[in-house]
Amino acid sequence: MRFDIITVLPGLLESPFAHSILQRAQKKGLCEIVVHNLRDYADNKHKSVDDYPYGGGSGMVMQVAPFAACIEKLRAERAYDEIIFMTPDGETLNQTIANHLSVKTNLIILCGHYKGIDQRIRDIYVTRELSIGDYVLSGGELPAAVLVDAVVRLLPGVLSDETSALSDSFQGGLLDAPVYTRPADWFGHKVPDVLLSGNQSAIDQWRDEQALARTKSRRPDLLDE
Amino acid sequence: MRFDIITVLPGLLESPFAHSILQRAQKKGLCEIVVHNLRDYADNKHKSVDDYPYGGGSGMVMQVAPFAACIEKLRAERAYDEIIFMTPDGETLNQTIANHLSVKTNLIILCGHYKGIDQRIRDIYVTRELSIGDYVLSGGELPAAVLVDAVVRLLPGVLSDETSALSDSFQGGLLDAPVYTRPADWFGHKVPDVLLSGNQSAIDQWRDEQALARTKSRRPDLLDE
Repeated sequence: MRFDIITVLPGLLESPFAHSILQRAQKKGLCEIVVHNLRDYADNKHKSVDDYPYGGGSGMVMQVAPFAACIEKLRAERAYDEIIFMTPDGETLNQTIANHLSVKTNLIILCGHYKGIDQRIRDIYVTRELSIGDYVLSGGELPAAVLVDAVVRLLPGVLSDETSALSDSFQGGLLDAPVYTRPADWFGHKVPDVLLSGNQSAIDQWRDEQALARTKSRRPDLLDE
Repeated sequence: MRFDIITVLPGLLESPFAHSILQRAQKKGLCEIVVHNLRDYADNKHKSVDDYPYGGGSGMVMQVAPFAACIEKLRAERAYDEIIFMTPDGETLNQTIANHLSVKTNLIILCGHYKGIDQRIRDIYVTRELSIGDYVLSGGELPAAVLVDAVVRLLPGVLSDETSALSDSFQGGLLDAPVYTRPADWFGHKVPDVLLSGNQSAIDQWRDEQALARTKSRRPDLLDE
């Protein structure tokens, strides 16, 4: 699976893609993440990619031409399943969307910055608009990293223990049960007896009950779906 | 405002905090972001901070002692408003929570990794659990960066134009209207006439209508609140 990310701040994305699971997935050849500097596609000598908004108001707007030039170049090289724009007014990312995207082959991800991107980019090129949540960030770079992380960890072979992703929160429609590790007694704070019992069916039952209780108390909306 | 982030992957957070608005906010002295390597607080020579889950199952669980040691050290140095754990089963971050956190002074943010953290950390130390959305990620590092970004851009003096944050999506309960910049005609794709009219009251009215229409079509739930 290949991700092409177009951004005015390629340096911001360096360390998130160079550690942990995303690093290992790339080293194993399970995914390719290519970050493109939007300024390389500016059509002026100052490498400027934004301008004042028509109609006035605060903030700068990213122009059509640089995004268009980068997208056209990439599309000439291979077919893309989706051109995704990360924006707070997009469809809210959830685990179902991440699962769905994890079977795609090539994705382009556009990162906005400043006040936003010229609407015509969205009208002409973008096939899907995604938000990572109902809050405003400085730009689309962290959302792009979040999307890539959510998708890549679902690719076969990326997680060392394949059952691990399946038992995550949300995948079964429930939140996770509490987890504990050594020591069994930490200054009087003890691990629940059942987890030390060795009785696997009792442990499984306790975990199911805890997952259901936690979901009921914290996220009853998940049970309504 | 000060953020202390405790993580097993401090390197992953290097570039997000070294660019753009977060970099400028730190340089201006408007916020301080300190990343702590959890392994420095391991109580064994292998610097291991995780162990197998009690009761079996896949994945490793982060132990109580290293987090406790780091938190205790920080709390001996200053008072903290909140100790926040980033977790998919936490309260879902939104703009209201970001606004609320932006008036705090000192926050500790714990990043989980692997299968999760020992429940006792959550029971004993954590005062608030936050999720950035209904999807599972490799760890709490990107969510911590998202939270810091959402909060820091609200601090007075961080954004160059103070009205910019106030006109963002969500701050007025509505999504943003479309934005456009030069050229007015891009290969036949034109900017709406009203934005070129110079009639500011007509422009403001168009923007209000567009914001309302976009919110109705994309996020009717925001209008119900």
